[in-house]
Amino acid sequence: MELLHQAIRERGTIIGDSIVKVDSFLNHEMDTALLYEIGKVFYQKFQHQPVSKIVTIEAGGIAPALMAGLAFGVPVVYAKKQKSLTMKGDVYCESVFSFTKQVYSDVTISKDRLSPDDHVLIVDDFLANGEAAAGLINIIKQADASVAGIGIVIEKSFQKGRARLEELGIEVESLARIARIGDGKIEFLQS
Amino acid sequence: MELLHQAIRERGTIIGDSIVKVDSFLNHEMDTALLYEIGKVFYQKFQHQPVSKIVTIEAGGIAPALMAGLAFGVPVVYAKKQKSLTMKGDVYCESVFSFTKQVYSDVTISKDRLSPDDHVLIVDDFLANGEAAAGLINIIKQADASVAGIGIVIEKSFQKGRARLEELGIEVESLARIARIGDGKIEFLQS
Repeated sequence: MELLHQAIRERGTIIGDSIVKVDSFLNHEMDTALLYEIGKVFYQKFQHQPVSKIVTIEAGGIAPALMAGLAFGVPVVYAKKQKSLTMKGDVYCESVFSFTKQVYSDVTISKDRLSPDDHVLIVDDFLANGEAAAGLINIIKQADASVAGIGIVIEKSFQKGRARLEELGIEVESLARIARIGDGKIEFLQS
Repeated sequence: MELLHQAIRERGTIIGDSIVKVDSFLNHEMDTALLYEIGKVFYQKFQHQPVSKIVTIEAGGIAPALMAGLAFGVPVVYAKKQKSLTMKGDVYCESVFSFTKQVYSDVTISKDRLSPDDHVLIVDDFLANGEAAAGLINIIKQADASVAGIGIVIEKSFQKGRARLEELGIEVESLARIARIGDGKIEFLQS
């Protein structure tokens, strides 16, 4: 997605050789027009599937997932990273390691929010080692629902996430695939 | 907003005499079509102001804020509740008490994301005691930006949030105002 490549190049900030900070347009400040286009492209990539629901994780995944939900005309569920007082009762829970924050979190979805009839598209802002996506897949399986595929805004293709998900037989579509970060530059794969 | 009253009545779950759980359409599972309408109504209520940016707090506020940003054609910034490894350097920070979670959180916005030229509309999912909104107002003041007003999806009018914000001279527009929760019923004020 050329518009996204351009935003990453021009508005992203490179930190070391593995992190590109995109908090100027994706996960702190959000470019609403760009996100609307991102939602439409996710729809184009997965419209061949009978998607009934979109699932993501708070907080970075909410915006692209919501825009995808708007394009598909389906509801979006965001998994929570810790239980709150209003989230009592039965939840599906997986322990997920955050690459960015270097901590484990319990990721939960209320059992009421998924049913065996659901065909779920997972959407997230980043794919690095695939920890978050694998956790969501396990939650969807716990609910006896099916996975339509995984839509990622920015894939770090030099990390193992895509391989890990493809080994599970799941279709991965990333709107930007970063081959390499170094010398102050970002190289993209064709996506 | 009648569509929202109806969703709260038909799809909300009352817990005790002060909490209505709306995780079936607002802050766990999200009804994308309803949220799109919510964004348009926020635009109608505040279009008389030259809003340049919308500010909210993760995670519950992101969806309504994003839809308002889409309607206004402006970017949305969500305040984070804890610092992450990619959020280094200078941030504006306020300590905020969460009514729902009964804990204090540090709420931060990167200094790069607000400028003195910004005229900021605050959007959040709930208004109870006004803690989150007051924290965001203080952050916006730290940035020497101005506050256009506060747009709330669900106001608990039996708590002190609105009075506290109006004392600060700030316009509060709530799409649903709950006068009373009790005996399994919800009574709304006109909004």
